[in-house]
Amino acid sequence: MNERVDRLREGLKEPLLVSTPANICYLTGFSSSNAAMLVEPERIRVFSDFRYSSAGKALERDGVEFVETNRNLYAGLAELLEGRIGFEATTVTYAEYETLAAGGLELAPRRGLVEALRAVKDEGELFHEHGAKGPAFETIVAGGPNGALPHSRPTEREIQPGETVVVDTGALVDGYCADCTRTFATGPLPDRLKDAYAVCLEGQQAGLQGVRAGTSGIDADASARTVIDRAGFGEQFGHGLGHGVGIEVHEAPRLSRESSDTLAAGNVVTVEPGIYLPGLGGIRIEDLIVVTEDGPEILTRFTKDLVTVN
Amino acid sequence: MNERVDRLREGLKEPLLVSTPANICYLTGFSSSNAAMLVEPERIRVFSDFRYSSAGKALERDGVEFVETNRNLYAGLAELLEGRIGFEATTVTYAEYETLAAGGLELAPRRGLVEALRAVKDEGELFHEHGAKGPAFETIVAGGPNGALPHSRPTEREIQPGETVVVDTGALVDGYCADCTRTFATGPLPDRLKDAYAVCLEGQQAGLQGVRAGTSGIDADASARTVIDRAGFGEQFGHGLGHGVGIEVHEAPRLSRESSDTLAAGNVVTVEPGIYLPGLGGIRIEDLIVVTEDGPEILTRFTKDLVTVN
Repeated sequence: MNERVDRLREGLKEPLLVSTPANICYLTGFSSSNAAMLVEPERIRVFSDFRYSSAGKALERDGVEFVETNRNLYAGLAELLEGRIGFEATTVTYAEYETLAAGGLELAPRRGLVEALRAVKDEGELFHEHGAKGPAFETIVAGGPNGALPHSRPTEREIQPGETVVVDTGALVDGYCADCTRTFATGPLPDRLKDAYAVCLEGQQAGLQGVRAGTSGIDADASARTVIDRAGFGEQFGHGLGHGVGIEVHEAPRLSRESSDTLAAGNVVTVEPGIYLPGLGGIRIEDLIVVTEDGPEILTRFTKDLVTVN
Repeated sequence: MNERVDRLREGLKEPLLVSTPANICYLTGFSSSNAAMLVEPERIRVFSDFRYSSAGKALERDGVEFVETNRNLYAGLAELLEGRIGFEATTVTYAEYETLAAGGLELAPRRGLVEALRAVKDEGELFHEHGAKGPAFETIVAGGPNGALPHSRPTEREIQPGETVVVDTGALVDGYCADCTRTFATGPLPDRLKDAYAVCLEGQQAGLQGVRAGTSGIDADASARTVIDRAGFGEQFGHGLGHGVGIEVHEAPRLSRESSDTLAAGNVVTVEPGIYLPGLGGIRIEDLIVVTEDGPEILTRFTKDLVTVN
């Protein structure tokens, strides 16, 4: 664990208050819905309330001090901390910022420092084949026209023959997420859906080939998007090609037209183009891969041929 | 729906940017992980990205304009909005605030405006007996010493005879949450646990009697806490007596020593004292109730006598 904190310290200009639950868990193994962690050059403190004090005290064997606060964590931090402190600007709310500032702290907004470490997985973090402990998120099953919504919610509509059904499912393995999507047919598909499936699969395969260490998130996205654009379905592919996966289902790096990331060996990312045809149906094909210097190492084994279920 | 927006408008000094997902859902029925809503005197706009555009366009029949933005919602808002705008300080992150401020907006932090409306349920929102659609949260089952942690997570430890097992479970009914906790025995309990159960139950019943419209959250909490304190278990009751329940499992009002709320008829709240004995076990007994002028209307029907399961 402390190796991760040491790597973090190398990039710090001032003590950093870490308050993103997944980041605290990554750095210490401590899991709490109401916690913060102060990383200083020679000291690590975790702050949380009564409900987590047993687990918090167990951190002390790893050299992490545990400080029990009341449920109003930020009011407690404002009293306990002093001087200049960096904070995670993408997690701390404006109200929490005001509470800290009222305590006289000099606050420096910081972004993505722990996330950058988390994006490069070490050997111990790469995913196992077995032993999923439960779902990483609620499975999305979207049939027929509802499949045209990338994040469709369940409805009472019965699935009909000759439709696509998008199944997007996750598993949680030792605290890490896996993510996989396949699209099935419930009978012979209309030509336009059949064409879209073939294009989406071709785009997905081009996307896989476009993913390697050193490539930008924009270029990786473009490798799939170009194929889908040329086939005339570009307008119907409205999201990015993929995203990093780890302690959270969505984390750095991003593979999209708006990405500012560059891929590195050890990134674990999804490659998941989709084509969504309003009123007709949707298609998404998603693999989970490890980025290496030579290209993708594909973790997902399920066939990508169009499977018909009845 | 618009009656809720009209009630909100009565309390506004400037247009309010609503960005808490549960608040947007309460005001419009629109459910999205990446949305904001601007409430102006004569206009309601909802902003979200491509993934939610079908659902967003359906809002227009209720007089709500839908504006599609890219995935970076706040960058889009900074371009689209102008003038003085209130924002939800307990939801908007510091980074999002910076993005909006960089767009030249004059920003006023506001707190709890929609939450205050949500705390008083109307007839249509009160919970049904039937038709739960799924869990509102992951059920907590904490046996033996693990029960001494209020929010225990599953472990591999086998439950032993003569322990308490705390079962805290929720259900989701038409988008609203229910919440219930009971504590079971797995055989004859040690005297100290048996005593603690009796005290917890007595405290819970006193707590129920202390809940009525006009009472402060602090006084409601005290009605149970006094009983538990007098019996010598005050130190082991480390959390508040309860919380509001609705679209979210935890919402206003709070029943605790730190509460600034006053109960109102139509609040739906939990009454859930707990006694946690490190190394020995935990007890928590929780009912869900509707606050009325005359006291509590109890929604939970399960017995509170100590039930032994084998």
